Order: sequence, then structure tokens, then C-alpha cells
Amino acid sequence: MKRREFLNAGLLAALGGTMASVGCSPVSSTGKKGFKGKAKNIIFLVSDGMSNGTLTMADLLLQRKEGRESRWMSLYRQNKVKHALMDTASADSLVTDSAAASSSWGGGIRVKNGSLNVGPNGLEHKPILQKFKEAGKAVGCVTTVPITHATPAGFCVNMKHRNMQEKIADKYLELQFDVMMGGGREYFDGTKREDGRNIFDDFKKRGFNVVQTKSEMELVEPGKPTLGVFSESGLPYTLDQKSDKELTQKVPTLAEMTSKAIALMSENSNGFVLQVEGGKVDWAAHGNDAGALLYDQIAFDEAVDVAIKFAENRDDTLVIITTDHGNSNPGLIMSSKVDAKFDLMQNFKHTNEWILTNIKRNDSPADVIERINYAQGYSITTDEAQILLNEYHSLDNDGLYNAYKLPFRQLAEIQEKYLSIYWSGMNHSGDFVELAMFGVETEALPPFVRNTDLHNYMLQAAGVDALVKVNTVS
Amino acid sequence: MKRREFLNAGLLAALGGTMASVGCSPVSSTGKKGFKGKAKNIIFLVSDGMSNGTLTMADLLLQRKEGRESRWMSLYRQNKVKHALMDTASADSLVTDSAAASSSWGGGIRVKNGSLNVGPNGLEHKPILQKFKEAGKAVGCVTTVPITHATPAGFCVNMKHRNMQEKIADKYLELQFDVMMGGGREYFDGTKREDGRNIFDDFKKRGFNVVQTKSEMELVEPGKPTLGVFSESGLPYTLDQKSDKELTQKVPTLAEMTSKAIALMSENSNGFVLQVEGGKVDWAAHGNDAGALLYDQIAFDEAVDVAIKFAENRDDTLVIITTDHGNSNPGLIMSSKVDAKFDLMQNFKHTNEWILTNIKRNDSPADVIERINYAQGYSITTDEAQILLNEYHSLDNDGLYNAYKLPFRQLAEIQEKYLSIYWSGMNHSGDFVELAMFGVETEALPPFVRNTDLHNYMLQAAGVDALVKVNTVS
Repeated sequence: MKRREFLNAGLLAALGGTMASVGCSPVSSTGKKGFKGKAKNIIFLVSDGMSNGTLTMADLLLQRKEGRESRWMSLYRQNKVKHALMDTASADSLVTDSAAASSSWGGGIRVKNGSLNVGPNGLEHKPILQKFKEAGKAVGCVTTVPITHATPAGFCVNMKHRNMQEKIADKYLELQFDVMMGGGREYFDGTKREDGRNIFDDFKKRGFNVVQTKSEMELVEPGKPTLGVFSESGLPYTLDQKSDKELTQKVPTLAEMTSKAIALMSENSNGFVLQVEGGKVDWAAHGNDAGALLYDQIAFDEAVDVAIKFAENRDDTLVIITTDHGNSNPGLIMSSKVDAKFDLMQNFKHTNEWILTNIKRNDSPADVIERINYAQGYSITTDEAQILLNEYHSLDNDGLYNAYKLPFRQLAEIQEKYLSIYWSGMNHSGDFVELAMFGVETEALPPFVRNTDLHNYMLQAAGVDALVKVNTVS
Repeated sequence: MKRREFLNAGLLAALGGTMASVGCSPVSSTGKKGFKGKAKNIIFLVSDGMSNGTLTMADLLLQRKEGRESRWMSLYRQNKVKHALMDTASADSLVTDSAAASSSWGGGIRVKNGSLNVGPNGLEHKPILQKFKEAGKAVGCVTTVPITHATPAGFCVNMKHRNMQEKIADKYLELQFDVMMGGGREYFDGTKREDGRNIFDDFKKRGFNVVQTKSEMELVEPGKPTLGVFSESGLPYTLDQKSDKELTQKVPTLAEMTSKAIALMSENSNGFVLQVEGGKVDWAAHGNDAGALLYDQIAFDEAVDVAIKFAENRDDTLVIITTDHGNSNPGLIMSSKVDAKFDLMQNFKHTNEWILTNIKRNDSPADVIERINYAQGYSITTDEAQILLNEYHSLDNDGLYNAYKLPFRQLAEIQEKYLSIYWSGMNHSGDFVELAMFGVETEALPPFVRNTDLHNYMLQAAGVDALVKVNTVS
């Protein structure tokens, strides 16, 4: 036995698997560690970069704005879930990135930040959707960021680095998964790709439905794999999209993509496994953008609702709801009239990103004040507007059009006194995070899990853990 | 029926109680809503102001420093608890203070921030330790902040405002609870009290053991109520205390107070109810003081360990572990070499408070750099030291000796690049918080609770819910 094969065998033994021959029939391995193998379908929902405060504030905003709880928290209040805390670390850091986080679930092994199911020595761990496809299930991912981004990719491919998104798109062509939908046109379109190939054509030649608008998506019928790419990079923030008729008509919501993916994949008699990512929750946290954050968390919650509605009247579906790591640990923080400040968010029309990308270098402070008042319903001072404008004056020309150089942090600091929402930095946190399970096969969930535990949990819940191949070495 | 009586009756009905006559025999009301009334003893542990990141980082620090998990998280990993998220709001705000939070548990009703079991119309809700005392149990509180502070007071008294700490001390004299220990000498000592009364003498006259040092505490025998007051205001931070022989000898730890309280109160044949508060976790978060925060969280965790060790070999004790609200939502935030930065905390000798209270206005930047290096093991720059010193130069004379005016925020901002720990403001957050139950009567805990739910939960778990008086009106 070669060293790598030995490692794989040891790994599989450790995971409770066997060296049994590989098959594609959906035979269940019942009774293992409390599993009955009843989860014919698994819907795995990830709000990317969701700190505890994000979950809380989205629920509070819905309660105050619409008199309803978030679907996620309503499941807790109605005592319909098992839940746990999850340790999110990666192989090389207490604070994970989304590639290592998704790989921990996707490959069952911690890898270094940036890697997609490739270990430190080049060892590749087979991604879980490949395993489920071998076991005869329909598989797919939907997301609000590029479909080639780290979180969907971690369920699908082996890749040295998450940044190789064109190569990830190429892999998707080979894999022929059933539904892959999100943003990221730049990694498919020949006018944007480095190699000039328009791989949309390749997808069509291989028999894919290729859709690029919501109405095209709605018309897709089951029978062929589907690639849906609805924007250049990430999809618009929910808050900005809802204030824009054209975007609302053209781009599907996460809930709409989830609903379509379930409709297409549930046609498969062996069941399906779907990953759903609220990817821009993480982007909003990186930008300390409260409106973007909470309304995208609510959009994620609407996808949760779609999944629960599918699962609640069946006895064959497991729904997992979680996040991959915290980000910037936002909080509604005590201050005078804190509730009234928080209530301003109910009438937000636009995100901070929308505000900042539309400020021009030669705007006056009054212009900035008016724009923010229009977008979010409060008036900052002239001095505060000037602080923002100073940042534009110090930007190079290019910077005006580069979202990453815009003064997100400065705007968030100005907003503290108006919204009473504060942020711990602008990056991922090492916090243990919330994880919930609904439906069948939830009984085996303990109060605390390592992120890697979920890989085998899903295989065992579906009863396919004895069927899937030993991880291959490339 | 008068309006207030009606309200009380309605309230009690809503809580699942009855208008039955009041008694003191420990008869159990079995079977109600899944309760068997088996919790003869209840230990209620509160890490005050503990955000999710505080719980996480204390566990990670222990793992990396000592190769062991926190006791709290080990209970999760060993699948020995039921746990929930808890909504912490008060009657007038999404973000509670500690008085309203403790009153929600203590009186079962949300009151306005600042109040102790007194509703908006002056309606008083009987505090839970009074109810348990009526039911024949030994009752008490131990804390690292003044024993008259909001969290213990919320289990014990009715008071219009938490700031009336001398009056709260007077109430404790009347109540004759079995064990009350913590800080707060200024509210008992005649040289400090506004009325000049030395009420330590009154406690002695009423038959209390009055102890003011750790060795005096250790000598206390069961039989009489005990008042222990070990410092002027709050007890020293754990980190500073461990670096100071005199403080270590003189002042008991939270775990030591907990152990003594259990030893004294468990002599009572009808059982006991004890509140244990890690109160300075909250103070540390208000100060964005990472060393103070995590080492006091660990000290709290050692009190959890004492409680679990008492409960684990019995079938008559319920241990509840939680916090009253988040505070400043700290996080270990992604950055280059983030693990190595976090590991600096393993060798901390002193808190930020110790650093800042010892800087003098005419210190040089080199003095400040040396002091921080001595206390926490890293060297800030001359420019950063100057930023701190500038704050001292702008303080009035009085400010030098007023901890609240010291530049805690500036030091925390300087520390970001050395420790990679960031903070969301310097005040309480509205986050839903973690709650765990261990021992008997944990089965009825759903995945989500309102803070007020715990009042009745404790009464029902102990089987005394049908025995205690209807809330009285003052």
C-alpha cells in the first residue's frame, strides 16, 4: 500500500467508512452511530460570514418591521430544530477563510486558508457533491456571489487556490452537476476570461441549459443540467435590487434560485443534495454595510423558508442551516434611544455600497448629505460629509471606481451615532457559530461540532457513506 | 379585585402558576409541562456581558495555553447539556442593562433598564430568591463585583434603581439570605456610606458571619447566614490578582466563593439556590480590555467547574450557565499571523486597566512602551505611546485617578495590530446569547427562550411553583 493510499484508508476508517466497493445504487447503511440513512435529500444552507449579531439583528428587524420572526429563529422558537455551536478553524488558522471552511464540509478535512480540498502535501480530498453524484443523487449549488466562488467550489472541486476561478468554471463543465446558479459571468464569458474562451458555448455543447436572466431560469425544464449566471460578479445586494425594477425583473433572488433548484433536482428518484449560499452577507460584513448585511441575511432567510417548506411535509429531507465563520461581529450597541435608531433600518432604500459608489469627487457636502438621507433616512453633519469627501480627494482616479478603496469604514464610523450598530474590524472572526438541523436525521447532532464533522454527518444521514470512493490522489 | 391584584393573578396564570395557598413545605408539583420538580438545588451561573466571541476566545486560549477546553464548552463537546439561544431585551429597549436582565430572571417580568423588579407603574415583582426562601431553601449569591450590584440584586430585592446600592445593602440585612459574597465594601462601611452607618455591625448583630478576607471565609461554619465583602468596589481582575501575592492571599476567587457557598448551603435539607456572577467580564468588555476579559471568563469557567463537580454525581441539582447580554462583541479577527498574535495572550501578566492606571502624566513614551511590554509582552511604537500620553495630558487632575476617563479605547485600538482582537463599541449588545443547562430538569429547555422564561423554569424545575406567594404590591 502506498503512503497516500494508506493515509486515505486510515482517514476513511476514522470517518467510520469502509473500503467496500463503490456503487451507485442508493443502498442505505442503517443504524450507524444513530443514523438511519433516511435523508434522501439534503439542503445545506450557508449564510456566509454570519456573526451571531447578524442573525440576531435580522430577526429583530423583521419583528419590528413586519411583525414576523425570521424563519431560522422561528424554527428555534417552535422547538423544531436541533442546534449546535460549530468550531470553524482551518488547518493553518483559528480564523478560517471561506475556501477552507467549505472544504472542511466538502472534503471532511481541514486545509489551509485559500485551498479547495487540497491538503498541505497536495493530497486531494474528494468533494462531497462528487461523492453524492456517484451515489446517484442530483447535486448542485446556488449562491448570490460568483458560482465559482469559494463556498460552492468547496463542495464541488479540488483546486490549489480559490482565486483560480476560471479553472473552477472549467471543472464545472467536466463535472456536469445538475444545477449551478449564481453570479460570475466574468469567469465564463470569452470577452472577460484570460484565455478568451467563451465557455458558455462549451456548456451548451455539453448539453447544459445555460440561463442568464430570471425569466430564462423560470422556463428551464428538468432533464438536462443547468448553469445559471446572472451577473458579472456577485448578484446585487437585496436592498439595492428591491429599489431597482430592472434588477428585480432580471436577477433571481436566492429564494427563487433555491426554489427552482429544488424543483429541478427533486425529479431525481435517488434524491438530491443542494448547497445554498447567502454569499453577500459576508461581503456586506467586510464592508461594515449594515443595510446590505441585514437585508441580505433576510434574503437568505427566505431561502431557508423555501427549504423548510419543501422538507416539512416529507420524511426524507434533512435541512442544515449554518454559516462558515463570523465576520466583523456587528452588534446593536446600547446608546440613548437605541431602538429608534435601529428602527431607521426599516426604511432603508439603499446600501452603503450604493451611497459610496455614487459619490463623486466634486460633490459638495450637501450632495453627500442628501444622498445618504435619500438612501437611509437620516442626515449626517457637514463635517461628517466632509470626512467622506476627503477620502475621495485622496483617491487616485482609478480608486473612484474600485469598490475596495471606497471609505466603507469611515461611513460605518459616522453611522454609529445614527444607527447604534458597531463592528469589530472588517474581516472574519474565529467565533464558534450557530448550526441548526431540521427534518430527518437530526437526532445525532451533538451540542458542539467541528466543521469537518459535517462531511461524514451528511454521508451517514443519506446512508451513502459505505458507497462512495476513497479520496483519490492527483 | 383591584387592578393590581388582577394583573398579578393574570400574570401568575400566564406563568402556569395558581392562586393556591402559600406554604413552606417542599412539596413538588410534578409533571407540569415536562417538569418533575427534581431540582432540589439550582446553581445559576452568569458571565455578565459575555458576547459569543468571549466564550469562544476563552476556550481557544485555554486550549492553546493549557491543552484543555473550557469547562463550559467541554460540556457541549461531551454532549452533556441542553442549550438554547436567549432573547435578552428589557421592557424599554432591545439592549438590556444588567438590572433589567437579572430582573427578567429574578421577577419573571421585563422591567425598564435600571430597575430591579419594579415595573413601570411601581408594581413590584417578588424576586426569585425570596420565593425560594419561602419554600424552605437556602439562598444566596456570589459575585466578583459589589454584592449590591445589579445582577445579584435582581435575584434578591425590589428597588427603583440599581444605583441605590446602600439601600440594597440595607435590604440584604432584612432578607437574611444564607450566603452573600463579593465586593462593595463602600456600601457597608460607615466611613464610606452617605449615612455614616457601619452596617457590618448591624449584620453581626443580626447573627451573620461577616468576613472580609479569604482566610476568614474559609473558617466559616454552617449554621448562620454569611456576608462576605472582600474589596472596596469590584474584586481585582483575575489577571492582576494572579500577579499579586497579597491579593491572591486576601481575596477569594469566584470558584472559591462558589465552593464555599455550596458547602454552606448544601447543609440545608430542603436544598439551595445560588446565583454565581462573573461580573467583571462585563466591566472588562466595557473597557475593551482583552486580558481582563478572557482571564475573568476563565475564572468564571472555574466556578462552572465547581458547580458541575457538585452536580454531576447527584440527581437533584440543576446547573444553568448563561450571560445576561453581550458586550462589545469582541472577536479574534483575521489578519496576517493571527494565531501568533492571539498566542501573546498566554503570557499576559496584567490587564489594560493595570497599564493605564499606572501611567503618569509625565512618563516618557519609553516608559509607556516598557510598561506595556512588561505587562503583555509586545512593544508598541513611540508614536502609539505618544497617542496614549496625549490623552493623559488632556485629562484634568482628577481624571488621572478616575478609571472611567482613562484611554481604554485608544489602547484597544493600538492593540488591534498586536493581538488581532477587535471590539464593536464599548457597551452592551442586543445579541441573542448562549444558555446551557446541566443536571436534572434540563429536558424542558427549548432551543430558544426569552430571558423571562427562566423565572418560571426554575420554580417548576424545583417543584415549588405552586407554593410561592403571588407577587405583592408595595
